[in-house]
Amino acid sequence: MKNILLLTAFIFPLVLFSQPDIKKTEPLHWFIGMEEPTFQLMIYGKDIADSKVIIKDDGVFLKRKITTANENYIFLYLEINNNRKEGPVNISFSKNGKTTEIEYQLYKKEKHHNINQISPSDVMYLLMPDRFADGDPETNNIEGYLEKSNRENPGGKHGGDIQGVIDHLDYLEELGITTVWLNPVQENNMESYSYHGYSITDYYHIDKRLGSNNLYKQFVEKSHEKGLKVIMDLIFNHIGSNHYWMKDLPTENWIHQWPEFTQTNYTGSVVSDPYASNYDYKKMVNGWFVKTMPDLNQDNELLADYLIQTSLWWIEYAKIDGIRMDTYPYPDKVMMANWVERVKKEYPGFFIVGETWLNNASFESYWSRKPNSSDSEYNSKLPSISDFPVCFAIQEAFKPEGSVYSIYEVMAKDFIYTDPFMHKIFVDNHDMDRIFHVLDNDFEKFKLSLTVLLTTRGIPQILYGTEILMDGHGDHGVLREDFPGGWKNDKVNIFTGKNVSDSQNESLDFMKKILNWRKNSEAIARGSLKHYIPENEIYFYERRSDNDKVVVIINNNDSEQTLDLSRFSESVKEGEKAKEIISGQSLIVEDKITLNPNQALILDF
Amino acid sequence: MKNILLLTAFIFPLVLFSQPDIKKTEPLHWFIGMEEPTFQLMIYGKDIADSKVIIKDDGVFLKRKITTANENYIFLYLEINNNRKEGPVNISFSKNGKTTEIEYQLYKKEKHHNINQISPSDVMYLLMPDRFADGDPETNNIEGYLEKSNRENPGGKHGGDIQGVIDHLDYLEELGITTVWLNPVQENNMESYSYHGYSITDYYHIDKRLGSNNLYKQFVEKSHEKGLKVIMDLIFNHIGSNHYWMKDLPTENWIHQWPEFTQTNYTGSVVSDPYASNYDYKKMVNGWFVKTMPDLNQDNELLADYLIQTSLWWIEYAKIDGIRMDTYPYPDKVMMANWVERVKKEYPGFFIVGETWLNNASFESYWSRKPNSSDSEYNSKLPSISDFPVCFAIQEAFKPEGSVYSIYEVMAKDFIYTDPFMHKIFVDNHDMDRIFHVLDNDFEKFKLSLTVLLTTRGIPQILYGTEILMDGHGDHGVLREDFPGGWKNDKVNIFTGKNVSDSQNESLDFMKKILNWRKNSEAIARGSLKHYIPENEIYFYERRSDNDKVVVIINNNDSEQTLDLSRFSESVKEGEKAKEIISGQSLIVEDKITLNPNQALILDF
Repeated sequence: MKNILLLTAFIFPLVLFSQPDIKKTEPLHWFIGMEEPTFQLMIYGKDIADSKVIIKDDGVFLKRKITTANENYIFLYLEINNNRKEGPVNISFSKNGKTTEIEYQLYKKEKHHNINQISPSDVMYLLMPDRFADGDPETNNIEGYLEKSNRENPGGKHGGDIQGVIDHLDYLEELGITTVWLNPVQENNMESYSYHGYSITDYYHIDKRLGSNNLYKQFVEKSHEKGLKVIMDLIFNHIGSNHYWMKDLPTENWIHQWPEFTQTNYTGSVVSDPYASNYDYKKMVNGWFVKTMPDLNQDNELLADYLIQTSLWWIEYAKIDGIRMDTYPYPDKVMMANWVERVKKEYPGFFIVGETWLNNASFESYWSRKPNSSDSEYNSKLPSISDFPVCFAIQEAFKPEGSVYSIYEVMAKDFIYTDPFMHKIFVDNHDMDRIFHVLDNDFEKFKLSLTVLLTTRGIPQILYGTEILMDGHGDHGVLREDFPGGWKNDKVNIFTGKNVSDSQNESLDFMKKILNWRKNSEAIARGSLKHYIPENEIYFYERRSDNDKVVVIINNNDSEQTLDLSRFSESVKEGEKAKEIISGQSLIVEDKITLNPNQALILDF
Repeated sequence: MKNILLLTAFIFPLVLFSQPDIKKTEPLHWFIGMEEPTFQLMIYGKDIADSKVIIKDDGVFLKRKITTANENYIFLYLEINNNRKEGPVNISFSKNGKTTEIEYQLYKKEKHHNINQISPSDVMYLLMPDRFADGDPETNNIEGYLEKSNRENPGGKHGGDIQGVIDHLDYLEELGITTVWLNPVQENNMESYSYHGYSITDYYHIDKRLGSNNLYKQFVEKSHEKGLKVIMDLIFNHIGSNHYWMKDLPTENWIHQWPEFTQTNYTGSVVSDPYASNYDYKKMVNGWFVKTMPDLNQDNELLADYLIQTSLWWIEYAKIDGIRMDTYPYPDKVMMANWVERVKKEYPGFFIVGETWLNNASFESYWSRKPNSSDSEYNSKLPSISDFPVCFAIQEAFKPEGSVYSIYEVMAKDFIYTDPFMHKIFVDNHDMDRIFHVLDNDFEKFKLSLTVLLTTRGIPQILYGTEILMDGHGDHGVLREDFPGGWKNDKVNIFTGKNVSDSQNESLDFMKKILNWRKNSEAIARGSLKHYIPENEIYFYERRSDNDKVVVIINNNDSEQTLDLSRFSESVKEGEKAKEIISGQSLIVEDKITLNPNQALILDF
């Protein structure tokens, strides 16, 4: 808990003398022993730019001092000697005979960083902290925050917080998920829609209504204690319009300026389109996401360094296990690839998943495809992408007129990707109608969709509440509804079991069985995939590792089906013994197998 | 005409003595001066296998003699010295004291082969010779051929022939196409459906009902004289069940044998699917196309050499300019890549287009994608593929509920291909409902679809009769209907103008204008493509080369549209002068442009 005590010291620099007046020093602190010994220190203070900067420190050297047209910013590039001891470096700013000195804290980077690599054994549980559980009602309204809590407003703050997640880690552990992904937790001090987290107004502070930097760090620690991993949601594409930069931009090109408000065309494919017009490209990448989200210009190297450091800071400070990067095709793609490389340089094997919302595998593959050394084509270097085509294929398969062929077909395209087994797969997310609604609240089809999600290739992600058949749709505020039991006096309480419906209990049982089985399945963790052309709406596939084999059979018919197994002799042989995971029953393979209407079998051999 | 005289000599080997009895010697002759000096000579004759083979020739050496379990075949691998003079090599076969000697002809490979490289300047005209024009009624029925002509039967022989095409090369030249692709012309001596050409019963002879080897050679010569290029249609995947091999297979594994008739699953994507089962893969590649088309086993090296040589033979003998290879994903893909490489070794830059019928760009790209030197992924090496996704996208765009966005989107995927400008593009072909029918016989939409086809990236292919609004659909025999005027006493004669309808004349005018313009357009030949996200069903794109610029604007609305050009300032500027190709009018660019309902503009700057 050493850092808890230190936190109070470094949140704001110690001002020893009057003037120059320093308002911000970011990053809040930095680390000794990084692979890249130089870092950028952004100093913000009135008329600070022409101050004389002096550092007298045997282990810290001022390599560059960069000022811009805005006299209120200085960017210092400091090199830290690897042998320097922990402790503050004194930096003085002198101007007109007056001096301000700050003590800037330096901590050792941990030698063996406790990063838990995320792999296909994992299942991510995506939850919106404002909507999961209100662990600390005292923080629901905080002075200085522009939006007050109001649970009656679907698009308002509801009061959920990080403490609420900490309080229910037991629930998540029992459910069987292995990884928690919170929607962004950094400060979003906006007048409205400040609940979702995607309008960051301070990269270095957790929103006080959700908790504090320290509480977030505790949340990661407690998750790790339970064997749960944590993914942090970051956004480099844009900020919230109330970010302090917007009142005093470091440079004119810090954000993309337009003569009048210009929105992105949301056409991610433009970025990879060899024929795109400059007009469309510029609008896609430089247009604003919405009016309250100014579009950052990652071409600006000062900003690029700033953004990259925020991610390194959170990894090192909070010990997160992975990053989910928002709106991946929207920021400058070259800078983003540099970012991935920079993170990997410091933390080899670190998990990053980009939100690459594209409608088909061809477009999607641009962000995760085999790099070609013989030409200059783009390589995002992303370890993982959000596999939207798989999401759409699973949804389509189990709609009334759907066919499992859509799943078969989307998987057959995998040769265009670098490593599809590392793709994040999902059947819905916080931006989409919930899967239970998409499938017309059909519990049987819902189970089929989840069975595929949890057994095919990829790293599954489940949206909070899927396990209890939440069916929100339409307005984002509605589908991100509050988790029952997260608030005092909720009529239904999933955590205690109060008023939980039979179907919810059945769904919870179903999910727990598969989730708790899959995390120890070698075939799921490392197994290959083999599948067969669907016939009669039956999709048959196999996962196989050196010592393990799992066969999944999906009957997407409303009628009983008897399947002749001779066609699948590569995968199953008569006389083999298996345990069926959903029912728990043991069976011996015969020449035929009968499936109930809409039954899925997960056969563990 | 030297070869015409020679032909009679080499069609069948000269038998000097009785026994052993030699029935076939293939290739019919071979060439001195090939890059690869060794070739395979297949000898077929009763009990020939254990004959002693003697070649006494200073320039021809027997490298290997291969026999199989079938005593009626010998495969000789002969190496030819590059300095050998033209003339026959004597090969003697001795057995039981008796000797048969053959004179096998060797000709010089032409040093500067007159291959006209096919490029985006070209437009291919695909015609089925049985259905275009009957130039020689005498050949309609030939003794020894199992099917007789019967124009009343949609799936029967109608009597069209190569002479018919020769007779109407003027028509094709005037129309403005540059390249003629005939459906297969090799012998198809089948009981029924022998008209389409895809059931080859003799790789080395033109079907006599279509003409002769010599006539085919003349057809190529006369086409070249008119500046037209010729593409030959070949099939390596299967033969017709009446091929002589089927009565006496060279080896048991010459074709894919199954315990009972087993059809391919027609699922081309299985070939590239990393997760395909062996079961599905084997059925796809080894299953028969239909009962009358035995599936060749290209894994057999003797057969592979045989097939490869047929293509080299036709290139050298007939001086064709390109090959269209049927059912590309169905034969063994490694052998097919070897084949492409072998053709390119002899004829660098030779044009080959594979029929790669796949439903989406991801699957399609497997056959034409950037090779990756860092792993072992497959590289077909094909110079060109049949771009089915573009075909479907253009069709979709102009259907009643369609959108030009489908064209925009399919083009935006081009980064996944090696060289999309070399793709064969089309709006229909001999296997599909005709485009005029697909678009509900809507002449305006038809013109839009052809305008896109003839101005976007790629090498367009038009199906015979498209230019006169043929609208066949459904049964293959029906959509491959006879070209009006190709037969004596046809009520309508497109060649003479007799009874040609106004709309047919309008269509012919429209096609001629674009076709004759595009073949001299530098922007079409070598120009880049740039396009803009469609808005309000208007698709705007530009082709641009160093010295030329073409802008195409497609109004896919049934209403007049006025387009503000400021968004397109990268492509057009006020005051620029252009000629509109379809109307022939000149115009000066203003700030806006008005398009009639369903109007396409081709602006040549």
